[in-house]
Amino acid sequence: MIIVTVRRQKAPKIRNRYGWVFADELVDIQADRDLGIANVFEENGGFLGKGLFLKGASKTVRMLTLRDEEIDEPFFLRRFRRALSVRTRINPNVAYRLINAESEGLPGLIVDRYGDYLVAQIRHPALEEKKPQIISALRALYEGGIRGIFERSDFESTPEYRLNRHSGVLWGEVPEETTVWVDGIAYLIRFKTGQKTGLFLDQQASRAKARQLIRTYHLEGQPALDLFCYTGGFSFTMAQEGMTTLGVDKSAPDIETAQRMAEINGLTGQTGFIVDDVFSWLLNQTMEKPPLGKPYGLIVIDPPSLIKSQQERPYGKRLLTELVRSVLPLLAPNGLICLCSCSYHLGWEEMIESVRRASADCGKAVIVVDQNVQSPDHPWLLQMPETLYLKCLWMTVPVEGETERR
Amino acid sequence: MIIVTVRRQKAPKIRNRYGWVFADELVDIQADRDLGIANVFEENGGFLGKGLFLKGASKTVRMLTLRDEEIDEPFFLRRFRRALSVRTRINPNVAYRLINAESEGLPGLIVDRYGDYLVAQIRHPALEEKKPQIISALRALYEGGIRGIFERSDFESTPEYRLNRHSGVLWGEVPEETTVWVDGIAYLIRFKTGQKTGLFLDQQASRAKARQLIRTYHLEGQPALDLFCYTGGFSFTMAQEGMTTLGVDKSAPDIETAQRMAEINGLTGQTGFIVDDVFSWLLNQTMEKPPLGKPYGLIVIDPPSLIKSQQERPYGKRLLTELVRSVLPLLAPNGLICLCSCSYHLGWEEMIESVRRASADCGKAVIVVDQNVQSPDHPWLLQMPETLYLKCLWMTVPVEGETERR
Repeated sequence: MIIVTVRRQKAPKIRNRYGWVFADELVDIQADRDLGIANVFEENGGFLGKGLFLKGASKTVRMLTLRDEEIDEPFFLRRFRRALSVRTRINPNVAYRLINAESEGLPGLIVDRYGDYLVAQIRHPALEEKKPQIISALRALYEGGIRGIFERSDFESTPEYRLNRHSGVLWGEVPEETTVWVDGIAYLIRFKTGQKTGLFLDQQASRAKARQLIRTYHLEGQPALDLFCYTGGFSFTMAQEGMTTLGVDKSAPDIETAQRMAEINGLTGQTGFIVDDVFSWLLNQTMEKPPLGKPYGLIVIDPPSLIKSQQERPYGKRLLTELVRSVLPLLAPNGLICLCSCSYHLGWEEMIESVRRASADCGKAVIVVDQNVQSPDHPWLLQMPETLYLKCLWMTVPVEGETERR
Repeated sequence: MIIVTVRRQKAPKIRNRYGWVFADELVDIQADRDLGIANVFEENGGFLGKGLFLKGASKTVRMLTLRDEEIDEPFFLRRFRRALSVRTRINPNVAYRLINAESEGLPGLIVDRYGDYLVAQIRHPALEEKKPQIISALRALYEGGIRGIFERSDFESTPEYRLNRHSGVLWGEVPEETTVWVDGIAYLIRFKTGQKTGLFLDQQASRAKARQLIRTYHLEGQPALDLFCYTGGFSFTMAQEGMTTLGVDKSAPDIETAQRMAEINGLTGQTGFIVDDVFSWLLNQTMEKPPLGKPYGLIVIDPPSLIKSQQERPYGKRLLTELVRSVLPLLAPNGLICLCSCSYHLGWEEMIESVRRASADCGKAVIVVDQNVQSPDHPWLLQMPETLYLKCLWMTVPVEGETERR
């Protein structure tokens, strides 16, 4: 039995669906074990709900529900059904994020669907005990519509969570790889070796935005650059819209996947990929001799999370500035830059500040033509600003020529 | 002759295209007149550019250029050509904002095109002297493609600008009203009596987003509410997408225009309009008896600027909270709320905070499904955060039923 009591003034925050109870917000812990499901009360004895408990963790409790309900298979199935009904409404693809942790009221759980297969990530030790119920509920949810569930809990996590880094089949048969279609592109998913659960579904909205802006700004026929390209999602989108692309990523296996995907999608002629560290590759680029012979009409910068904590913020901002400063001279007139940041520690204002510094160094004005966040199957909860992590800025440099040269 | 000298440490900001020089950033003013074009220098004597000067104004200089060029008809024509070339690329409509002041390097000047006519707003007294050159450059720009230019400089402005509130024909023939098509809707523009220049073109992107989200979330067939509806742009968009709409606005002439537009667009059956103050109208609404018989699938809240200065921020935030709190109980399951704020004083974080308070009062979780800013023909300059003013949040309340009722 685990019973925790929340400081009086913090209870309204929990009632208003903020999902984390920090260690210093608790006035009392009665626990016969180090982890499990906690009953959460407020100081006057009122019941606040239930959550995942981990002794010693800075986020000691992660709320699961504000009701007095059992955290069992039917609980998971109800949450899964609610999530699936939203996906069915909004997402026409067979690949989507089904469960997005806190935003779904299921902290510590990520579930992505790739056609016949599910990939799950369990990010909280108290949830590991619930694995059988989760598997069972997922199977019930799809009623025979899936063939296997794979676990990819081998991500980096903070030591306090003491997670076992599982990776393997949870149920059914899971092949080495499968192909799924997302918005007209065939993606090769390598369950065991891909990053995260295999595909950055959170960037689906950005890839759709890329399509739209290539058409709006008539960028077809121009070269495009895809920095930190992973397996080439942006490259293939831009190539399908008539651009010639160059993708750069330091991961050789991911570039190999990208090249296989180019073949599958019939885009080998329009897409090129280079295994290199983006920062050092950029150091060797000049406008005089770009690899594709011309400046780029669209440059996508989609780095991995550069900022894992508040402390790393200044460092991350500097890297973003450096990236933008390096690509600004490579941009074609009227071309677009898409800058992405996937850290919730970095707000819009700070991203803008990073670009402002780069533009000052280059002496260029920058117009922001659009902005977007993570795809709608990665919902963000207004009550938890931390659930909004991915931000993308689409920018252009106004042509100075006509005014400035005369 | 007007020569101003900028404090040493402020010069880089100007070089980096921030457009305003505040009174306390100047170390010297040599001026034989109170307003006009100033030559701007930095303390070491280096030339910084030219700008609109107004003695005594807090923004004493508004930069026009970083070059030593004449501010004459060819100057305006070059700027207009650059702006038009962008509009031609990005906007398929015959109604658009051609000149968006600071973002275009033309502080104090707004020019909108409505088919055969232009509507101009001159917001700086030093620009009034340049009116003949501006008119002449606009005529040259369209080479006979326009029939008249109307001035609507009768907006509210701070007393320090001592502007004459002009309204009238600047050139050619301008009728009482005209009809223009924007994204499939016929808009009636009343040049002399409409708000601003006649139509809120900055919300074109939001109306397009409304169309997209009604389809994505399958809201067709449901009732919709259009608060602060003006002449009904959102109402007609939602009605065309199959919703039944109710628009509320306190301006009787604008509602009259909306009703005429409903006829022109053949949408009288699907759209209703009420002349009333939105705040008092909302006080009388209850979920039990909504005017359209059912809760709303989409509620648009597009108030006029509630915040005209930093001081009014807390007040504006409270009003946003009140609006969202009033509509949350009127929302259908899986319905969407679109909350707009057109004040640059209010950042994303503060808008979100306003909604968070409303949701706390109602005990509802809120998921943000999308967000957008002003249309791309109202570009915002990264170097001047003040040029980003319109922000829209699209939100839903996750259906609690399945989890909570069992």
